[in-house]
Amino acid sequence: MAKVCIGIDFGGTFIKYTALDENYQPLGKTHQVPTPLAEGRDAILQQIIAGAKQLIESLGLAREDIVGVGIGSPGPLSVSRGILLALPNIPGMENVPIRDIVGKALGLPATLENDANAAAYAEFLCGAGKGTDDMVMLTLGTGVGSGIIHKGEIIHGVHEMGAELGHVIVQPGGRACSCGQHGCLEEYCSATSLARNTTEILQETDRQSSLREVLAEKDQIDARDINEARRAGDELAAEMWEQCAYYLALGCVNIYRFLDPDRIVLAGGLSNAGDDLTEPIMRHWKELDWTLLQTQKSLAIATMGADAGAIGAAGVAWQTHRPA
Amino acid sequence: MAKVCIGIDFGGTFIKYTALDENYQPLGKTHQVPTPLAEGRDAILQQIIAGAKQLIESLGLAREDIVGVGIGSPGPLSVSRGILLALPNIPGMENVPIRDIVGKALGLPATLENDANAAAYAEFLCGAGKGTDDMVMLTLGTGVGSGIIHKGEIIHGVHEMGAELGHVIVQPGGRACSCGQHGCLEEYCSATSLARNTTEILQETDRQSSLREVLAEKDQIDARDINEARRAGDELAAEMWEQCAYYLALGCVNIYRFLDPDRIVLAGGLSNAGDDLTEPIMRHWKELDWTLLQTQKSLAIATMGADAGAIGAAGVAWQTHRPA
Repeated sequence: MAKVCIGIDFGGTFIKYTALDENYQPLGKTHQVPTPLAEGRDAILQQIIAGAKQLIESLGLAREDIVGVGIGSPGPLSVSRGILLALPNIPGMENVPIRDIVGKALGLPATLENDANAAAYAEFLCGAGKGTDDMVMLTLGTGVGSGIIHKGEIIHGVHEMGAELGHVIVQPGGRACSCGQHGCLEEYCSATSLARNTTEILQETDRQSSLREVLAEKDQIDARDINEARRAGDELAAEMWEQCAYYLALGCVNIYRFLDPDRIVLAGGLSNAGDDLTEPIMRHWKELDWTLLQTQKSLAIATMGADAGAIGAAGVAWQTHRPA
Repeated sequence: MAKVCIGIDFGGTFIKYTALDENYQPLGKTHQVPTPLAEGRDAILQQIIAGAKQLIESLGLAREDIVGVGIGSPGPLSVSRGILLALPNIPGMENVPIRDIVGKALGLPATLENDANAAAYAEFLCGAGKGTDDMVMLTLGTGVGSGIIHKGEIIHGVHEMGAELGHVIVQPGGRACSCGQHGCLEEYCSATSLARNTTEILQETDRQSSLREVLAEKDQIDARDINEARRAGDELAAEMWEQCAYYLALGCVNIYRFLDPDRIVLAGGLSNAGDDLTEPIMRHWKELDWTLLQTQKSLAIATMGADAGAIGAAGVAWQTHRPA
């Protein structure tokens, strides 16, 4: 039997599971169970463990086939101590030593990782970053999450607070961010902020836009609405889409000045726009970038989809627990 | 006899030499010889080699005492290939395989490193970054040079173009930089740009300032003049000094969001202002920084002075050539 690592992606809605062989190939499909949010800490932990046991059983894995288990979770958390510090969206999960609780219950060496880092690591191992040494991922969803892989390893920072690229300041004195800063990348480039910034203009000005109808109809607009309106020739939509691409391009310039990676990978809801997003980013990037030297710019859309978190968690377990 | 590594700091005015024992202690003082700029490539290389032989002889070192030689040089260069690509201030030094030429002439394993990285590595080993794992240095001189140490190793980037923090964009659409970008950190925070930006205001406006007299007298002003005027109550000087500190603080926020290091170290001419520089940076940093989590901010002035380049070059040789 091939050796495997188990990956658990612990989220606010679902807990997802995968088993990855030593070549990072998944054994079958990713499983998932609902997160029993309302039932509190102990029920949540029991569900995490029970789902893993189900997966192990359904794959017919023996204890000696399993090298380790990786758990991906929203932060803030401590990778080195294996502890969830707080989960803004899941009450009762403060200071939970999840790594050791899950590891002990399964009788397996366990590793905890930030979910954004786990997803980035999945792209690095098996997806849009495969074959690179250094990769940076930006996840453009509710916020802007990020992961930095340097020489095959996730950068956490000395106090485990690094790789927070959504909170790099790209516009001094710019839009207020919930983190307390002004002008964070996240305030211009998340799917949510793009929609919110556009909605604000619709509500606070009398600019003409086809998005007014969408807003009236659905009571909200999203990033996809803006892209569709832009494609149909709407000026405001085009302007907001360009602004988002501009700041992402500025982020790309700064990522290359810091780290000069092989590739930047875009994930999350906004990245579903594909070329509609990468084309204007590349255009702005070329305009913004230095001419001193030739930057080998590489930008790609993530390919691992919703399973990235579980696969990356299993990948992190392989990195940590692979026998020498 | 203790084992040593030789460090060579190749600059446009002087070539400096040191010998470092395995505990990174220098054997005697740093030597230096003038760079025979006008005499061309071969004379320069011969001088580099002759100076190293002199140092070795003066210290009474036998071949078997010397583990390796490190060469620090201005870039752009390729560390991995050991080649100077071009030296903007030293004609005739294009595509010079300096590592192998010097190594062969001395009969020693040789390593090439960017001078800014070498200086940062010296601070990491023996200076203001001693005892840290992760350190970022900004050298505030003619431009803004930088070095990033991550887990004890210098980050070069995949294409050897990383750690160029002077060219991180901190002000979208801001001042034009010679690199081709707009709003680079270097345009607000180098000693030269601080003086130049202030001179521009004196020349282009009729703002009152005691610096007008200094400019009339010396035909130029420098960062020290601006700090002295500021201390004496000059408003324009205070404003320009604050602007410089503001953008350095913004750079500090972004460095922590990317890498979350132990410490940021400031070097170069502007850092001679000491607390006069770090105090306003820390003040702006606290204002700009997120409130989401507590950032453990650490900012220090470099302590290795003008010998940092040679010591860091020797340190890099130790890192590369230390027997297992």
